[in-house]
Amino acid sequence: MITASIIGGSGYGGGELLRLLLAHPCVEVKQVTSRSHLGEYVYQIHPNLRKRTQLKFSDPAAMEPVDILFLAQPHGQAQHHIEAYAKLAPKIIDLSADFRLRDAGFYEQWYGEKHAAPEWLSKFVYGLPELHRTEIATANYISGVGCNATASNLALLPLIKAHLLDLSVPIFIEIKVGSSEGGAQGNSGSLHAERANVIRTFSAFGHRHTAEVIQETGVNAARVSLTMTAVDIVRGVLATAHAKVKQSVRTKDLWKAYRTAAAENPFLRVVREQRGVYRVPEPKILAGTNYADLGFELDESNGHVVAMCAIDNLMKGASGSAVQCMNLMMGWEETMGLEFMGLHPI
Amino acid sequence: MITASIIGGSGYGGGELLRLLLAHPCVEVKQVTSRSHLGEYVYQIHPNLRKRTQLKFSDPAAMEPVDILFLAQPHGQAQHHIEAYAKLAPKIIDLSADFRLRDAGFYEQWYGEKHAAPEWLSKFVYGLPELHRTEIATANYISGVGCNATASNLALLPLIKAHLLDLSVPIFIEIKVGSSEGGAQGNSGSLHAERANVIRTFSAFGHRHTAEVIQETGVNAARVSLTMTAVDIVRGVLATAHAKVKQSVRTKDLWKAYRTAAAENPFLRVVREQRGVYRVPEPKILAGTNYADLGFELDESNGHVVAMCAIDNLMKGASGSAVQCMNLMMGWEETMGLEFMGLHPI
Amino acid sequence: MITASIIGGSGYGGGELLRLLLAHPCVEVKQVTSRSHLGEYVYQIHPNLRKRTQLKFSDPAAMEPVDILFLAQPHGQAQHHIEAYAKLAPKIIDLSADFRLRDAGFYEQWYGEKHAAPEWLSKFVYGLPELHRTEIATANYISGVGCNATASNLALLPLIKAHLLDLSVPIFIEIKVGSSEGGAQGNSGSLHAERANVIRTFSAFGHRHTAEVIQETGVNAARVSLTMTAVDIVRGVLATAHAKVKQSVRTKDLWKAYRTAAAENPFLRVVREQRGVYRVPEPKILAGTNYADLGFELDESNGHVVAMCAIDNLMKGASGSAVQCMNLMMGWEETMGLEFMGLHPI
Amino acid sequence: MITASIIGGSGYGGGELLRLLLAHPCVEVKQVTSRSHLGEYVYQIHPNLRKRTQLKFSDPAAMEPVDILFLAQPHGQAQHHIEAYAKLAPKIIDLSADFRLRDAGFYEQWYGEKHAAPEWLSKFVYGLPELHRTEIATANYISGVGCNATASNLALLPLIKAHLLDLSVPIFIEIKVGSSEGGAQGNSGSLHAERANVIRTFSAFGHRHTAEVIQETGVNAARVSLTMTAVDIVRGVLATAHAKVKQSVRTKDLWKAYRTAAAENPFLRVVREQRGVYRVPEPKILAGTNYADLGFELDESNGHVVAMCAIDNLMKGASGSAVQCMNLMMGWEETMGLEFMGLHPI
Repeated sequence: MITASIIGGSGYGGGELLRLLLAHPCVEVKQVTSRSHLGEYVYQIHPNLRKRTQLKFSDPAAMEPVDILFLAQPHGQAQHHIEAYAKLAPKIIDLSADFRLRDAGFYEQWYGEKHAAPEWLSKFVYGLPELHRTEIATANYISGVGCNATASNLALLPLIKAHLLDLSVPIFIEIKVGSSEGGAQGNSGSLHAERANVIRTFSAFGHRHTAEVIQETGVNAARVSLTMTAVDIVRGVLATAHAKVKQSVRTKDLWKAYRTAAAENPFLRVVREQRGVYRVPEPKILAGTNYADLGFELDESNGHVVAMCAIDNLMKGASGSAVQCMNLMMGWEETMGLEFMGLHPI
Repeated sequence: MITASIIGGSGYGGGELLRLLLAHPCVEVKQVTSRSHLGEYVYQIHPNLRKRTQLKFSDPAAMEPVDILFLAQPHGQAQHHIEAYAKLAPKIIDLSADFRLRDAGFYEQWYGEKHAAPEWLSKFVYGLPELHRTEIATANYISGVGCNATASNLALLPLIKAHLLDLSVPIFIEIKVGSSEGGAQGNSGSLHAERANVIRTFSAFGHRHTAEVIQETGVNAARVSLTMTAVDIVRGVLATAHAKVKQSVRTKDLWKAYRTAAAENPFLRVVREQRGVYRVPEPKILAGTNYADLGFELDESNGHVVAMCAIDNLMKGASGSAVQCMNLMMGWEETMGLEFMGLHPI
Repeated sequence: MITASIIGGSGYGGGELLRLLLAHPCVEVKQVTSRSHLGEYVYQIHPNLRKRTQLKFSDPAAMEPVDILFLAQPHGQAQHHIEAYAKLAPKIIDLSADFRLRDAGFYEQWYGEKHAAPEWLSKFVYGLPELHRTEIATANYISGVGCNATASNLALLPLIKAHLLDLSVPIFIEIKVGSSEGGAQGNSGSLHAERANVIRTFSAFGHRHTAEVIQETGVNAARVSLTMTAVDIVRGVLATAHAKVKQSVRTKDLWKAYRTAAAENPFLRVVREQRGVYRVPEPKILAGTNYADLGFELDESNGHVVAMCAIDNLMKGASGSAVQCMNLMMGWEETMGLEFMGLHPI
Repeated sequence: MITASIIGGSGYGGGELLRLLLAHPCVEVKQVTSRSHLGEYVYQIHPNLRKRTQLKFSDPAAMEPVDILFLAQPHGQAQHHIEAYAKLAPKIIDLSADFRLRDAGFYEQWYGEKHAAPEWLSKFVYGLPELHRTEIATANYISGVGCNATASNLALLPLIKAHLLDLSVPIFIEIKVGSSEGGAQGNSGSLHAERANVIRTFSAFGHRHTAEVIQETGVNAARVSLTMTAVDIVRGVLATAHAKVKQSVRTKDLWKAYRTAAAENPFLRVVREQRGVYRVPEPKILAGTNYADLGFELDESNGHVVAMCAIDNLMKGASGSAVQCMNLMMGWEETMGLEFMGLHPI
């Protein structure tokens, strides 16, 4: 049994994390902070937690030491306080974008400002177990993952690991996302009457998560793009990557690559059915789960591969991966506390 | 550890039940039947179960004995086979409507046909633990509950238990429901293009679940009505009951009655906040949980009470209550396997 | 051809009104004001108007005289400026709540503050043609209508006009509403992630529109209540009124009352089918139309009548009725510019 | 004033067409056929038409001659009866896929069966006015358009007309669609509980509408693909095309090409705003309109262009374009009867 606290607990990522930690058999939650909701019961903001915890939001200035500290603040906060946070806990997992990129220059290029704690970048490991399981197990500092980057990276993972792609050809990743990705603050376009029924391509290219895809896949920056389209769902991301396989690569080669990936990773599943309603990866059935469902189609006549990955952006795309990292860091079963199967229908 | 099987596992209620039993720490699932999907993997129909079970749908004619048998067939099946089913297992929980009513004449009145096994009606206990906890604990045969009846019965439970209602005045229960209530077969009105964006009052009165409300509350049949309106959600029921309290009943009396109900029942919660987004019971945050959230407002000037109950129709309104009953029958913790907190946002 | 201007054109009601006036064969729109969007093209806020008008939002302090002035400001504005507005145009239609109630004391009771221009209350006619067609035709000042009040008043209209109700028994009106009713500003509960998938009873009783129902139906204030529930739709209101008919009233009497109402009013339709998907009034198919669809069910055994009315809250519940009033005031065909049939499916 | 009839009027395309023709100032609708709903009022199937027409569905075997005949049957019907239909009317517009392709071999390749009336293929003109305005004006036989093909063809139109694309590079078109595209019959995946909340890539490539894109753009068949993803909306298509521009093409060149296209075509609009909620083309605001909203983004560093087109699949993607063709054939104003501006919000 270890103790954990969350800094920044009133947002969607923080709330999801709190839910997972409260249910985790080996964790005791000590504090959850929120300046704007200081003193309120956490269940008043996260109503699913009613009758499950009597915790109140506490002051971030009054933190007690714990075994592991989770940071769930908006982008740009953690890098300013990381020294102080590191004195509170020997292990830190930061869900924000602050420590995802390893290179300060690359960070500045994508985030448009100098990093406030560049010397810390090399101390963090990118928190996607499917890519960094071994390093995570021995790390003290883990960065979170961008949800869109995660869907993209996992869509490409089997193809890249098996060296099946012709990387001289650009990769176009079309990403469809739900509204919870916009966070609990929202903007004028987040109002239900404006956001319902949308198919809204809010970013044709240039989305910041692209940087994580470039870093983690090693694909040339000029040859990968993420196009972001908002659709009418609350939770969920589907990434559909269009790429080209090397000559003579066939469907059976892809089957092998995908099955290997699923065998090596407890939260990866291959979804490629010939019948029924659910033949391809869909975020619809993943709400609350930590699964990343993968699928693919190959046009053998021209090498065009369509690689898909569906996740719950708040789980595998944020808090679920964070808990998975904690499990690895502590030497626990990787799936502990992440067993929820998801609902059908929903 | 006990063994369990499900007859009729391809529908929504059967699928939800299977999900709960697979995750239950004290149950081993032996068989799940489906004639139409015989031989298929259950995860092809219930895609959330992929990588969680390799069970295939089996033939209902080839059942092996188990400790407990769940029946999840369409209405009108179980009553024809109950003798045979009783030979397969010492304990049976039937999710259908076949054994919910205690009186054969009352059944005929509401279902429009004679009951095929009237002698079995008295052997069954109505499977709502909040009303029949003690009897369920010693029963061998448990009926399921109607989801709309459950929302109605629980909305009224604190008021009736505390004798606060003036039962000479009619009770109008307005019920809003999601599409999963219509089942996996659907009809022409269930097509997404016709069912999306609806506020469709498909039954002004006369819904069959009314019979369960009359039976379980004891309210005079002429003075209670259920009005059913379909709205654009998949899971969830909200029942809003309009009734009149006895003279001199005040809001503080209702608070006491509701708090008592919540204290006595692990899955009842009172939701009545003065601030924030979630001030009243809402099915939105209950997907996958076994909670019934209760709320009320009283107009002290005229005694008009608005009593609300929100549930997930497939959980507390069907499979969740069934598992809760199993826990009670086996002497286990009532909440075992039903700990999922629900998601926010969703 | 007359000239018209709109004060307060950036909200949903103002935008809908502008759309109707731009398409109206006898109206030329001169100015549309917005302080916050001053100088912007109106199509930047109301994107459906792109390529249909090059109007820009103008300054409310720089209005030119017109034949008719529409006020579409938030509640509480018009009453402070009505003297000035009356100098700009001989005819005024105010969509806000400021001049809906005829009695200053009644206004204060429901709105919690003294009315700023009580002497003007008697100059206004309540802008629901189905109730005040004759007075509207000769009036210079027309108030708007509350959308929930309109659905309620029209649900009851046939029953009240035909004297079929037992008014000694309370009337419970259950109203389900879409998100556009919350306006273009919204609040924390209007965020898509919080507002999607809701069945949220945000007002059990005490909604301000109740005052308009009391005033227009003449029902005793203690015996009518509106219960408001938000559901996941953008446009639309369904009011379901539960009342009691006088003894010996039968279904055929209701048919006669409803058919009479539909015959006398071009925008009232009776929807009561025995087959098909669309058997009852539904806002789903009314988006953009000025129809009020009416339906009913009577339980002859106890006199319980369920009376339904579906409307588009921005049309019949606001801007559509306003244009209908203008048509009557100008002596034009009542339906002019309001001919849109609505879409199926949608 | 001309007479028109519709063969196959109970589907979504037929219903939308009927709505448009009933409102058209120069058309009188004589007959609308439906075998399955023979004798029923059309408003029982298309409830938006209540109080607007007393037409009943008639027998396709009992058609009277008219000036123009619309065919709105499922695919594969019209080609078997075209000889008979041609005797009923001098002008025919077929909404189905039967006469969209000009080459019988190409048809067989994409539809998997021999065409039943290959000699008629050359008599038909592809019914997209933006591509064939002049030919349509003098044609007697017009084919319908595929909705996904239309969104794709119009997304690319400005780029192709201005010769801006490097056609040696593959074009990937990602298409997101609503549920009405599935038709009024649906399948097991169309059930609301299964279809709500989806992001479902049901066709990675090989969709039949691809043939129309190949034919109409002239792009090499091996270098264009359509990827289809179903999302939770009823009406609407968004096509997002990823292509490469020729070297030295800049954003200003694209602006010019798009503005030219919009100037030459009354239903094309360019949507490319720097601020506000609606900066890009969105089907959300197009329900019921005949507009095709176009947008683009160019990455000048690598020539990657993202070209977007949003339409209402039942309007510009089917019945709206058909009425537009009729207007051209009759020498009427191209926009007649298609003036609806669309709704905001919706």
